Formats: sequence, C-alpha cells, structure tokens
Amino acid sequence: MTAPANFCSDNVTGAAPGILEALVRANAGPQAAYGEDEAGRRLEARMAEVFETEVAVLPVATGTAANALALSVASPPYGAVYCHEAAHINVDECGAPEFYSGGAKLVPLPGEQAKLTPETLAGAIAGAGVVHHVQPAAVSISQASELGTLFRPAEIAALAEVTRRHGLALHMDGARFANALVALEVSPAELTWRAGVDLLSFGATKNGALAAEAVLLFGGLRDKLEELRYRRKRGGHLVSKGRLLSVQLEAYLADDLWLRNARQANAMARRLAEGLAALPGVALRHPVEANMLFPRLPAPVIEGLRAEGFRFYDWGEDNGIRLVTAFGTTEAEVEGFLAAARRLSGASAAA
Amino acid sequence: MTAPANFCSDNVTGAAPGILEALVRANAGPQAAYGEDEAGRRLEARMAEVFETEVAVLPVATGTAANALALSVASPPYGAVYCHEAAHINVDECGAPEFYSGGAKLVPLPGEQAKLTPETLAGAIAGAGVVHHVQPAAVSISQASELGTLFRPAEIAALAEVTRRHGLALHMDGARFANALVALEVSPAELTWRAGVDLLSFGATKNGALAAEAVLLFGGLRDKLEELRYRRKRGGHLVSKGRLLSVQLEAYLADDLWLRNARQANAMARRLAEGLAALPGVALRHPVEANMLFPRLPAPVIEGLRAEGFRFYDWGEDNGIRLVTAFGTTEAEVEGFLAAARRLSGASAAA
Amino acid sequence: MTAPANFCSDNVTGAAPGILEALVRANAGPQAAYGEDEAGRRLEARMAEVFETEVAVLPVATGTAANALALSVASPPYGAVYCHEAAHINVDECGAPEFYSGGAKLVPLPGEQAKLTPETLAGAIAGAGVVHHVQPAAVSISQASELGTLFRPAEIAALAEVTRRHGLALHMDGARFANALVALEVSPAELTWRAGVDLLSFGATKNGALAAEAVLLFGGLRDKLEELRYRRKRGGHLVSKGRLLSVQLEAYLADDLWLRNARQANAMARRLAEGLAALPGVALRHPVEANMLFPRLPAPVIEGLRAEGFRFYDWGEDNGIRLVTAFGTTEAEVEGFLAAARRLSGASAAA
Amino acid sequence: MTAPANFCSDNVTGAAPGILEALVRANAGPQAAYGEDEAGRRLEARMAEVFETEVAVLPVATGTAANALALSVASPPYGAVYCHEAAHINVDECGAPEFYSGGAKLVPLPGEQAKLTPETLAGAIAGAGVVHHVQPAAVSISQASELGTLFRPAEIAALAEVTRRHGLALHMDGARFANALVALEVSPAELTWRAGVDLLSFGATKNGALAAEAVLLFGGLRDKLEELRYRRKRGGHLVSKGRLLSVQLEAYLADDLWLRNARQANAMARRLAEGLAALPGVALRHPVEANMLFPRLPAPVIEGLRAEGFRFYDWGEDNGIRLVTAFGTTEAEVEGFLAAARRLSGASAAA
Repeated sequence: MTAPANFCSDNVTGAAPGILEALVRANAGPQAAYGEDEAGRRLEARMAEVFETEVAVLPVATGTAANALALSVASPPYGAVYCHEAAHINVDECGAPEFYSGGAKLVPLPGEQAKLTPETLAGAIAGAGVVHHVQPAAVSISQASELGTLFRPAEIAALAEVTRRHGLALHMDGARFANALVALEVSPAELTWRAGVDLLSFGATKNGALAAEAVLLFGGLRDKLEELRYRRKRGGHLVSKGRLLSVQLEAYLADDLWLRNARQANAMARRLAEGLAALPGVALRHPVEANMLFPRLPAPVIEGLRAEGFRFYDWGEDNGIRLVTAFGTTEAEVEGFLAAARRLSGASAAA
Repeated sequence: MTAPANFCSDNVTGAAPGILEALVRANAGPQAAYGEDEAGRRLEARMAEVFETEVAVLPVATGTAANALALSVASPPYGAVYCHEAAHINVDECGAPEFYSGGAKLVPLPGEQAKLTPETLAGAIAGAGVVHHVQPAAVSISQASELGTLFRPAEIAALAEVTRRHGLALHMDGARFANALVALEVSPAELTWRAGVDLLSFGATKNGALAAEAVLLFGGLRDKLEELRYRRKRGGHLVSKGRLLSVQLEAYLADDLWLRNARQANAMARRLAEGLAALPGVALRHPVEANMLFPRLPAPVIEGLRAEGFRFYDWGEDNGIRLVTAFGTTEAEVEGFLAAARRLSGASAAA
Repeated sequence: MTAPANFCSDNVTGAAPGILEALVRANAGPQAAYGEDEAGRRLEARMAEVFETEVAVLPVATGTAANALALSVASPPYGAVYCHEAAHINVDECGAPEFYSGGAKLVPLPGEQAKLTPETLAGAIAGAGVVHHVQPAAVSISQASELGTLFRPAEIAALAEVTRRHGLALHMDGARFANALVALEVSPAELTWRAGVDLLSFGATKNGALAAEAVLLFGGLRDKLEELRYRRKRGGHLVSKGRLLSVQLEAYLADDLWLRNARQANAMARRLAEGLAALPGVALRHPVEANMLFPRLPAPVIEGLRAEGFRFYDWGEDNGIRLVTAFGTTEAEVEGFLAAARRLSGASAAA
Repeated sequence: MTAPANFCSDNVTGAAPGILEALVRANAGPQAAYGEDEAGRRLEARMAEVFETEVAVLPVATGTAANALALSVASPPYGAVYCHEAAHINVDECGAPEFYSGGAKLVPLPGEQAKLTPETLAGAIAGAGVVHHVQPAAVSISQASELGTLFRPAEIAALAEVTRRHGLALHMDGARFANALVALEVSPAELTWRAGVDLLSFGATKNGALAAEAVLLFGGLRDKLEELRYRRKRGGHLVSKGRLLSVQLEAYLADDLWLRNARQANAMARRLAEGLAALPGVALRHPVEANMLFPRLPAPVIEGLRAEGFRFYDWGEDNGIRLVTAFGTTEAEVEGFLAAARRLSGASAAA
C-alpha cells in the first residue's frame, strides 16, 4: 500500500534516478576544478541544440541564485525591475535580487492568475531619464507562474513588445520551465528567445535534479556571460567540483528525461484536478495548466486528509490549499489522495 | 599501471565513495524542503559532539560562501577584516567577503609562511572610534594556510589574545581543517574555540565531500545564526533539497571518514616531500605540514613531468611548483611521480 | 510690481536671510574640521530643548541622505520597510534607501490622501521568522505627506501601536516637519516620540536653510548614533567644514525662525486655496493642511497662467496642478496669482 | 597681535570671502531646484575653458563623495582599484569607495613619498580574466599626495602608460589640485587628460570653498555622466538648492581666485619650511612641494608650541608633526609660529 503523498512542493522529492546515476558515474577520476571540465563544455553545445540558437550558459545550484544573478546583469543598482506582486523574486527570495543587483528596486504589479499583462506593464513603466527615479531596466515573468498558470508564446511576445519599446531586458524565471513547455506543446525556442525572452533561469531541481539550474543568455545578452562568471564566483556559487552541476544538467536533458519528468508531473496534476472537481463543495481557484492546483475543500476534508498523513500547504483564505505534483508522483499516490478525499467528502456531506 | 597523477588541487578528485553512497541512500522518499529535514537536525547534534560544545551550524555548498557569510556577521559594512595578504579570502574569492559584508575592507598583512603573527596584527589594528577609518571588526586566519603551514593551538591563542583585547571576532578559514587537525594531533575543540576561534568555515569538499561546507559559530557568536540564515537565503545558498548538504556532512563525520581521508592526504604529501628532498637540485620552499608541498625542481624535470602527463601548478618564480595531495591520492600515484622525477633528475644531471 | 510667482516647490527659494547671515558670521576664524565644532555641540543641546527629551542628532546636507541614513540603521539588508506607495523614499530618491541599507525592500502600500493607515499596515506585515521572506523591520511615514496632508498625534500613535506590536521602528520623513507642526498646533514632542516615532528626518532646507537636515534618534534608537556616524562618513556626507550644517540648523531654530517661516508658508497656501476655491470650475483634490495644494483648474486658465510667467507642476490627470508655497512666498505673489486666475477664469467662462 | 595659528588642516579655515559673497548674491530670487540652474550650465562651459577640452562635470559637496562616485563608474563591484597604501581613499574615507562601487577592492601599494611608481603598479596588476580574482579596473593617485609631494606630468604619463596597456581607468584625487597646479607651473590640461588622467576629483573646499568639489570626466569617460547623475542622487548628494555648489565653483574659478589662494598657501608652506630648516635639531621628512610640511622638532619645542596655543597634528614617530597651510594663512601667522619655534629651540638647546 502506498504511503500518503506529500504534495507540499515539487522539491520534497529527491533526485531522479538517472541524474543520481550520472553523478555517481562522473565521480571517478580527476577533473579540472571550477567548472572547466568536459561536461561543462558539452553542456553549452547541448543547450544550443535544445534552444536552436547560440546561448551562453551559467550553471548554479539554486533557483534563487539563477534569478538574482540574471537580474544583476539586467539592471544597474539604480534600476527598476517590474514583476508580478506574487513573483518568487519579489516574495520568496529574501531580497536576493536586491542583494545581487546592488539595490535595484522590484516594482510589484497586479495581474490576474499571477500573470503580468502588457497593459499593466506599459502603464507602470515610468521615470526614464529623470534623476529622482530608479531607471526602468528589466521585466521578470515566471513560467509557470506562482499559481501554476502559463504564458503562451503570443502573450510573451506582447510583453516583449513593451520591453523592446522601452529598452528593457525580459527575464523569465523558469523554475518550472519544463512543466510549461510540455503543457503548451511548443519548442524551447518558441517559449523563449523567439518570443522575446533575453534571459532565462532554466530550472532543473524541481523536475528531477538534485540541485542544478542555469542562467541562459540569448542574443545580445550573451555578452554578459563574462560579467556573470565574476558575479557567480563573488556570490560563492562557483562549485569547485564543477561537474556536480554540469553532469546533472546533461543527464537532465539526455533522452528527454526532463520532458518525460514534466509530463508525468503535469499528468498527475490534471488527474488530481479532475478527481477533486467531481467532489461536492470543491472548487479550483485557478486554471490547472502545469503541475500545481489550488482547490478549495470543505474544512473537515482538509483536516481529515492531514489526519491521514497527507501533506500540503494552506493557501489563501476560505479553505484554500495548494497541491504540487512532481516527476516522482505516482498514480497510486494520486488515487490514494482522491480516495481519501472522496471518503471524507461523503462523510462530511452526510454529517 | 597507474595513470600520471593530477596534483593541481585537492578538489580535482570527486567525492569519497562513502559520501556518494549516503547521498544515494538519502534520495529515497520525500523530505521537507529547504533544510528542515532530519539530517539537518542530526548534524547540529553531531557537530556538538565533535567540538565538545554547543555550536550553531549553517551548511552551504562552497568554501567561498562559508567564508563570506561568516565574515558578513563578524563585520559591519564599515568594518576592517585583518588577514594575511595571501589569504584565500583576499586573493581567490573575487571579492566575495566584500560583497556579503556590504563593503567591509580586508586589510592584507605580511607574515612568513603565509601566517599572521600577533605582533604584526597588533601593529596593524588602528582607527577604532575615529570616524574617518573603517572600524576594526575581525581577523581571519587559514588553517591550513595557503602554503600548507599550520597554526598550533598556542599560536591561535596568542592571536586570540590580540583580538579579544580589541573586541574583534576571530575567524578560521578551515577549508583544510581536517588536514590540520590530524597533522597536529589535537582535538577539534583545542584547535578552535578553546584557543579563541569564534567562527569556523568547516571545509569538507577538499577532503571528500561533493560540495559541502559549514559555517560554525561558537560561544556568543551563536546568536548570529538567525541572521546568517537570512543572509544565506538572500545569497541564494539555501538549497531546496537540503539533505544534499547535511547528508554529505553527516557521512563525512561518520566513522572518522574525515580523519581517515585527511591522514591519507597528509601521508601522501609527506611521502612526496621525502622522495623529492632526496633528489639533487630540489628544495622545499615551505615546511610540509599538511597536504601541500612547494618544491623547486630543475626546469628540465618540471618539463619532463608535464610531458609524461603529470599535472600541477607553477608557483612563484625560480621553478617553484605546488603539489596538493588528497584523500584519494594513492601510494602508486606518489611512487609513479617520484620514479619519474628521479629518472628525469638523473637525466638532467647527466646532461 | 511683483514678478509672477514660482510655486514649483519649496526649494526653489534660496536660504532665509537669517540663516545666510549666520553662515557669514560663523565663517571667521579657524574651527576644528569635520563637525567637532562648537556649533555642533550646541545644536544637540538645542534639539533636546525643542523636543523636550534627550535626542541624538546627525546633521546632513540633504533630505535623501537623512532618510536613507535613518533607514540604514532601522533595517538590516534583509529587512522590509513599509511605506505609502507615493512616499518620497519610494518614488523620488532613486533607490537611496536600498543603497544605504544594503538592499532592504520598500513595501509600497495604498492609502487615501497619501496616508498609511494602521489597518493597511497591520495587514501587510508578514513573513517574520520565515527565511524565504524579507524581515519586517521598519515603517516610514511622511509628515506632511506627499499630498500635503497631515498625521495627527493620535493617528501616529495608532500606527505606532502596530509597529510596537511587531517590533518595528517608526520613521518619520519630516522634510516639511515645521509646516506640519505649526498647522497642527502641537509640540515637537507630541508629534514625534510621545506618539511613538523612533527616528525623524528633520527637514530645514525646504523651510529656509540653504542645505541642512538632521537625523534625530529618540529613546533606545539613540544608541545607533555611533553607527550612523560611520555610515554618514562612508556615504560622503561628513562635510569637512562642519559648521556649515550646524550653524544653519542653529539659526533655523533660533528665535522661532523655523516656526515663523512655516506659518508664513502655510498661511500663503490657505490664502491661495481660499482664493482658488471661490472660482468656478476649480476643485481642490486634497485637503490643504500645510503648504501644498492640488487644485484642478480649467485648461485655459492653466495655459494662461503659464503664459503670464507663473510656474508650477502638472499633477495627475484632468488638469490637476500642484502649488507649493514657501517661507518666502509673499501676499503680493499670492494675490498676483489669484488675480490672474480670476481674470483668466472669467475670460474662460465668457468664452 | 596675531593669534597662534591653527595648522591642523586646510579645512579648518572657513570659506574665502569672494565665495561667500557669491553665495549671498545668488540667494535672491527663485531658481529651478536640483541643479538645473543657470550657474550649473555656466560651470560646465567654464571648466571646458579651464581644461581646454570638453569635460563632464558633476558637482558634489565633499571630496569623499567625489572620489567614491568617480570610482563607482571606473570599477565594477568585482574590480580592483590600485592605490598607494597611504591614499585618502584607502585610509580616510571609512570605506566610501567600497560602498559606492558595490564592494570593489582597493589594492594598497607601497611607494616612497606616498607616490605610486609605474614599476610597482605594473608588478601588482594581476588576475585579469581569472574568475577567482577581482578584475583590474582602475588606478587612483593623489595630487598633491598625502605627504604633500607632487606628480609631474611625465610621472603621470608613465603611470598612464601602464593603465592604458592594461585597459584601466586613471583617477586623480585632486583635493589639493590647485596647490599642485601652481607649484608645478603647468596647465590644468597638462596635469590631467593630456598626461592620461581619465577622472579627476576636482577639489575646492580645502582651497577656499565652503563645501564644493566636482567629479570631472575626460574623453571617453564623459559617457559615464548619465550614470553618475543617478548614482549621485542615490547617494543623497543631489542638493535641492543646486546653485549652492555651482555658484561656489564658479566663484572659485573666477578671476583666478583658486590660483591665487593656492599660491598663498604654498608660499606660506615654503616660508615655514625655510624658517624651520634653519633651526637646530629640525629635519623635514618629505620634500615641501605644495602646502604641507612634515618636520621633526625637538620634543620640548613641540610641547612649547602647543602650550602657546599653536595647533597641529603629530605625524608618525620620533617627534614628527604635520603642518598644513591654507589660502587664509597669513605671513604674520607664519612669523608668529617661527618666532615661537626659534625661541623654544634656543631654550631647548640651552637646557
């Protein structure tokens, strides 16, 4: 019998077996320290294939480091970075973007379903050339968003039209990039540089790596790689046994592991969503587009699920919760959760 | 037959097998993200045993992060941190201590064998209370030093006498702490807080971990753990799958793995030193106390060794080189190097 | 005949004659450099009298420096500073608070008439103790606000009740402190520390000084003066001929000059407001409580006034403008403006 | 009879009368706030005349602000700024360059008479392109130096040859620029950009202004003015009544006031030096080239001078003192000091 699932986040799971095995394999024999290893060189070539364009790649161990480093070359210390008010960079990184940029200001903007719109963005950009104001420098969007919603290529292009008009860089926080990619059934290129993205925080940890992300620079921004390398070292993010990161990312991209992992996570989220939607008194607060869902459940059901050992976070008011599936989430776990929810829901209705 | 050894650094080697195995074992099953896992709790208890005192522990992935974070709570932005001019924090971290501290000034001081002396230190501390000068805040020493030399407990105590008199914190960069410890045959407590050390960057990566270090805070400085936790997150160093770090450190400390690894590295360094010292025209520029040696070899010998595939760095002028052994260095590798050196040396003398 | 008035801001005017004369008088004879002069010592005693309590005083030349320095000792780099979204520190200081604090985050909040309410504030404070979030550290209010509205002592006390409950510091940006003080007819003590203010940016430049402000620290925050002195020097704000600042502030406080100046500015604003309110098609968008008014005027009237040489800023949409009076604003200037407005208004109505 | 002189520094004196009068004159009538005034525009044109080339000018109130702002656009946060170990930026600014640059590292170098040599500089520049090291970015020299010695144009050109070869910016801290200029009898252009200087902190405060300096950018560095304007605002150094600074600088440059002031200060230093050199037991430790002298006097003479009310600083060991003359130093003050020194010297010798 399956243990009650933990849906707190997609990083409660360990690494995917294929990635761990690659790490173990790569461990034998000496390698040049500090990332000048063979796997590092292979990684850049592989990313160019995946994204169908030349791309500069800077591996780091955490998503916060990737985001903060990316923004540090997209904004001067006196710059403004526009983002959704719920953005991870604004809410969940303890000020890392401010730290790495030397004090740039995140300008939090509203938007339905945690998504920035071109209209809101265009209305917020102000102060260019006026010495009293921080200077518009960059825009950051999360793909998938903090509510699990997605930006279509056309939506990104509409935002990019605004950033280009104002000379701003467009950054994408892709902590769940693979989940978005497989959900939208588009190519990595279509979802990024072809739509106008200049910098991507390419996430792997939530989707199967142990601890590996990468900053990807497209087009003219590739020139910033040199600067980024110093900033990474200065931030303490240059790991001495550099293959640690590049090997993970290489294995992540090999044999479509990343896409298979993301498809599994998304499929489990859909199955959970469909199962819950069929229950009385349950509403899904946001569209379920990737691997996150935000249902409202009757309070006794929530309590009952927790009492049986299921784990998840409360989210907002009125009995909202957040469920996040991952590459390792199994059908048995999902069915176990739904069975318990149905049972508790029936008892609750009967009471 | 053994391949020619790579003596460039102790981080050209991968992780020790025991540590990798622990990582693989810990990978199964969900765990709370961001370090609140069981291994994290066990680690703090284990460190208290090892150091025979209560100690606050903050795991991070790199030595630069450990050093910079430690100094960020030991010095205000307007503080002075005194260190040897050759110190890793001064030379090899691309300004990470300045970054994390918000701009503190490292004051580089001379000293034989890369060691700070109480006299030099006492003579350099100046400006306290004068608003034009950065304010004396901390002292940092490297154990082992950048030249592989060691501070005895009494030497540390003599430095600590100066720091205490001036109200400064004493930080030890222990990237090679285990190598120093087993060489001096003292206890971790004697080498740190009993001698007056307030903060320790406890290194594990160079001695067998994949990527794991920890900031250790002793005595009154333990109060800074809370602040350090925010600074770590803000620096992008809170890994989401936190067991990654704590499991490595736990395995590192288990069954004296760390001490056995360090003894092997040191023994191989001694053996190399003895073998080289017996050759004509070879001089050892610094005492070989841990796992580093800095011989001068005849130029043709150096060239010949490189031609045969041995790897190491030039160091300083006049045919100086640096050789670093690690936990994975074998007798066969050492003997292979010495045999080649003898052969080349004979050929060189005959020429 | 009086030249058309310039109502752009209260810093378009030069210094009050009494302050310039004091500067000239103080110029003779040598003085210890860097603020250790007699006037500096006298200033601290004088401020204690004015505020009826011991107070630590740090003179600087600009309001931005005063605000940013004050906040740098009220928030750690990983702190959150709550303020109104229209606050000068958030909008008009090009990120100075972020710079001086090492990257703290300003959290912009809504509020009618540019005033923060206890309810909004209490609802926004979040994340304490959670390592992913910036930590609640301080609240900043502007007195007078950016829309010329005022906080009564009871309103400040209600905000202070919230800050005290959460352990936050309460900062007041008093660029127009004197204007608020005389308008409310309360004492400096009632408007600050007795109501719960911990740090005050005491403005003088807009009300008669050439360039002089001071950070005032009350109660337990006085201990931060030492730190502030280093931060001021480090910010390049320790002027070598220190009497420059202290002499201005001393003259500002002497013979109630500051109160007389503020009363004149406020009276002129009231007179302008009453005169404008009597005109057809004119509305005052915000209560006129200090020395700023935000009328809406018919477009032809605005154009006509500008054509006649009057100067002021557009403010918001729908023909809004901002008029700011100062200590040097004369009745003749006000009457000249009103006469023109009436004339243009009549012409406009007749058209 | 003349009061005993104060030779502690050239900023113990107030402002030159001509400068104060200009301030008073400029005070009447409204002016656009924040430096967009007429005097500001005139100043840039005037500086171009003085320096015989187009120059970008950023006025600020202090020398520390000028130096730190200049270096903030000459070095990235991960840059190295080479300077003499006795440089004001390294010793006397409480870390302001580190603060404004976001943590750049000052690399202190030795050199006789507080002067950097091309050989020492060339030997110190290291690490370019290596990610572990801060990146060579700028060199800063003080003219006059902290020991009152001067760099001839040819000496500057020799340093500039090194900076150009390595792609570094050359900054001159000209707190005593006028003193150097008149002593060397060269043109402002010859002493700066023609010799290879890229950025100049143009000092006026020590030579007659109340509080006024300017960052001057030459050649390609002029493009950094835009960035500097944001950094100045962000540092709290944009004074609202901007004419305060530009009027001082304008008056400083008018009618050769700055040159006349500097000649007077230098002449008084020479006269002091000659008078002291004639006394038994007195040695001048450094060449007296501008307005500072560093004599060694018999201890009883030093004590006696202080007892009679003369003021000056001890400097170094063995009865060294520092005497600084200023534009306001009179012959009577110098003769009074020398008479007392002679009298005390005779008494001391007789004893």
